[in-house]
Amino acid sequence: MELTEICRKAKETSRQTGKLDTETKNRALLAAADALVQEAGYLTAENEKDLLRARENRMPEGLYDRLLLNEERVGQMAEGLRQVAELPDPVGEVLSMKKRPNGLLIGLRRVPLGVVGIIYEARPNVTVDAFGLCFKTGNAVVLKGGSDAVSSNKAIVSVLRSALALQGISGEAVSLIEDTSRETAAEFMKMNRYVDVLIPRGGAGLIRAVVNQATIPVIETGTGNCHIYVDKTADYEMAAKIIRNAKTQRIGVCNACESLLIHESVVEAFMPYLARVLLEHGVELRADETIFAAAQELFAEHPQLLKRAAEEDWGTEYLDYIISAKTVSSLEEAVSHINRYGTGHSEAIITESYRHAQQFLDEVDAACVYVNASTRFSDGSEFGFGAEIGISTQKLHARGPMGLSALTGSKYIIYGNGQVRP
Amino acid sequence: MELTEICRKAKETSRQTGKLDTETKNRALLAAADALVQEAGYLTAENEKDLLRARENRMPEGLYDRLLLNEERVGQMAEGLRQVAELPDPVGEVLSMKKRPNGLLIGLRRVPLGVVGIIYEARPNVTVDAFGLCFKTGNAVVLKGGSDAVSSNKAIVSVLRSALALQGISGEAVSLIEDTSRETAAEFMKMNRYVDVLIPRGGAGLIRAVVNQATIPVIETGTGNCHIYVDKTADYEMAAKIIRNAKTQRIGVCNACESLLIHESVVEAFMPYLARVLLEHGVELRADETIFAAAQELFAEHPQLLKRAAEEDWGTEYLDYIISAKTVSSLEEAVSHINRYGTGHSEAIITESYRHAQQFLDEVDAACVYVNASTRFSDGSEFGFGAEIGISTQKLHARGPMGLSALTGSKYIIYGNGQVRP
Repeated sequence: MELTEICRKAKETSRQTGKLDTETKNRALLAAADALVQEAGYLTAENEKDLLRARENRMPEGLYDRLLLNEERVGQMAEGLRQVAELPDPVGEVLSMKKRPNGLLIGLRRVPLGVVGIIYEARPNVTVDAFGLCFKTGNAVVLKGGSDAVSSNKAIVSVLRSALALQGISGEAVSLIEDTSRETAAEFMKMNRYVDVLIPRGGAGLIRAVVNQATIPVIETGTGNCHIYVDKTADYEMAAKIIRNAKTQRIGVCNACESLLIHESVVEAFMPYLARVLLEHGVELRADETIFAAAQELFAEHPQLLKRAAEEDWGTEYLDYIISAKTVSSLEEAVSHINRYGTGHSEAIITESYRHAQQFLDEVDAACVYVNASTRFSDGSEFGFGAEIGISTQKLHARGPMGLSALTGSKYIIYGNGQVRP
Repeated sequence: MELTEICRKAKETSRQTGKLDTETKNRALLAAADALVQEAGYLTAENEKDLLRARENRMPEGLYDRLLLNEERVGQMAEGLRQVAELPDPVGEVLSMKKRPNGLLIGLRRVPLGVVGIIYEARPNVTVDAFGLCFKTGNAVVLKGGSDAVSSNKAIVSVLRSALALQGISGEAVSLIEDTSRETAAEFMKMNRYVDVLIPRGGAGLIRAVVNQATIPVIETGTGNCHIYVDKTADYEMAAKIIRNAKTQRIGVCNACESLLIHESVVEAFMPYLARVLLEHGVELRADETIFAAAQELFAEHPQLLKRAAEEDWGTEYLDYIISAKTVSSLEEAVSHINRYGTGHSEAIITESYRHAQQFLDEVDAACVYVNASTRFSDGSEFGFGAEIGISTQKLHARGPMGLSALTGSKYIIYGNGQVRP
């Protein structure tokens, strides 16, 4: 089907999905979950076509693994839908209602956004996730996945659509743009008439392309050049434990720590704690002169893990077993370094000082600012949202981990009895 | 100064303005108001240069009037700043604070957006308004006004900057891009590194240009193709009174009514009420066949005020003494016409039916949906916000009249005591 037609139909369908009551939506989500499990054989067979092409194209290991569907993973996707069914429905909540002096009653009601566009890469699970979250919030969703996963995505969407149809709901609540060309993607990003918001999910390149090309409002997600600042009053054991968690628990995620700032007065004393963590996990340290000098002896047996940092290291999200480290002479310098090189994602201070904790929380400009905790907590389920559509690093609409309510907007409903403006 | 340098300095300054306490901000706003009044002579003299050019260029009457500054208008601008000083400061409010099972305390705090860019036309009062609202919310503001008002804007910004400096606040809290070329405007709209949000204020053409060119997130404001639906259960007197107000009180505003939908069963009976209002105010009626036939006799003495509507009338925001009118055979048809041709601004139903009222509120997709009241109420001060930065017609971030809180975002502040993610 033609792109414009897909988007137009999604808009039309969103008028219907927006009116569905919570029970109907939950029943449909559970039915869709069951259908995925029932059709696991079909889904893995279609996925095999993508895998075949991926092997031919020598897709890197990590990407190949993300593309792969098996019975267990189909089960996990279905389980995801069941969990979304259990979450409270934000749609319809009246956030405030006030009587004006002229008798007008003005309420602010939470409503679906309408049509949500998702642009993503080769992860078939995003197809199911995005459908579940958008459908629960009464939106229609238009999916533009990567060409590597096109057979898997077509199969998933056809299963979801049949399940919806059996519940008497239009299958157009979820649509897939099957043409995966760049031109179609570019055209999609300008469908302001029909699509209310675009959410890119993927690497920094994809996100930048969407921000630069889209005329539809975008929720920017993702890139995290996250810092941990070891204050002069830091508890060294705690700092080492948090750095270990934030750097090494999962290296490829946006809330992993990429850069350390260490107060000059504690570089010497803290270095043995830091070296132990980094050496144990084989993390390469890219250090400024002061830290390099302090670390040299400790890294003597693994000299390949100690390098001098270059200017570009301060702005790099490694997503790897690498961490940069810089000496600062004050909290102010740490804050200003973070505000300059950070991506506004997640930033932490390790400190025993009340005043420094407050100042860091006040002055660091990021979605999530931590005192004495790992940046890895920036996540919808860790924040108690139950599900997550992404982590916003922009300031409009939603910032930080986004739960269901980030997929809603609002409208004013005004009850009058003949009022006119004087 | 070069554009990039203006924006970079604004970002730097926003770190300072974001930390100012409410008392300091209010004191500075009052000082700025006093300075404008003191410098009224200078401001009107500089404004005279713009007026001279405007006369040479044969600027239309309406625009010329909006450009004109005199002592009284300078006083009004100053009064606007004093009113903003009196409003509560939204910055710093903690919107929620929750303890997680692992002991993390996660709070959501309201913070300034950072740097707000305003792109507008030849209205010097916007310069003062935008400064006041952005400064009160701790933002730095970068203004890109029209070339017609450049002398006035330079003078106003220089007075505001001096007033801030006397209060010990960096004048760079407010900046004007003096180069009014299109190229510079286009470059400004892509300053994502330094500018957090763009708000265009002006006509539909300006807003479209910004939406199409900007890579910075935009808050779309303005255009209103607002409808009033006269239901079959409508009180005719009330309908006529509300239409009079919504169409004729101020014709050039975005919340004025541009189009009527009338249930077929009441066209005949309602027509005398409608004709009286329209004829009295010299409003031209562009009607479909049914309404044209019903109106013909009533308009017999003013045949020039009755025309047949063409398809493009349904989508036109006249901002003039013109209104279109279409017969519908059901509430559903009215809703679907509004959702198709409306701009999502303000829509009203006149009805005595409880069921129709609820259905209209539920199904019309607009920022403000009214039952039995004039669309003219869509306004920050009428909604009780005290001030208004514009009326958003998009769904992200803010929708409808935007008060001070629309100029803020949020950040998560997380208090831990050594937590790491399991």
